[in-house]
Amino acid sequence: TGFKWQQTEDNEDYVDMRDMRRVTVRSFKKKVLIDIRDYYTDKAGEVKPTRKGISLRPSDWQFLVDNAEEISRKVKEWEASEK
Amino acid sequence: TGFKWQQTEDNEDYVDMRDMRRVTVRSFKKKVLIDIRDYYTDKAGEVKPTRKGISLRPSDWQFLVDNAEEISRKVKEWEASEK
Repeated sequence: TGFKWQQTEDNEDYVDMRDMRRVTVRSFKKKVLIDIRDYYTDKAGEVKPTRKGISLRPSDWQFLVDNAEEISRKVKEWEASEK
Repeated sequence: TGFKWQQTEDNEDYVDMRDMRRVTVRSFKKKVLIDIRDYYTDKAGEVKPTRKGISLRPSDWQFLVDNAEEISRKVKEWEASEK
């Protein structure tokens, strides 16, 4: 359904969540990171990362996976309410 | 398994992923957001958000949920390699 890994010049793996928002899997200092981040195109036409984003350790990612159902439930609760 | 929703003074729902890193569900301009962000304690002892984080729309969150297995597979691939 449109999910497609791509690679940066540094051989990092990323997938577009939507325009200019990526999930990137890479390693830094021998630690794997899952980065969820916004990008922009600079004047030279190069796509660059912005400060809007967060790097997750695999254990953080696992936290999201393990609790995805409960988080989705809470999102639906907020969507249904007049909050 | 330690998962526990808590509430801010503004009635936002959050859960600690780990020390000073939260998932928060809240609404902003009538749009629900899932915020994954680092926090810090200021000199007054108050817990405040940092710039390290990202606000996801429900559709972004759903993208992560829908593709969690594939992203986890890629993480394991990186962990297994010498990248």
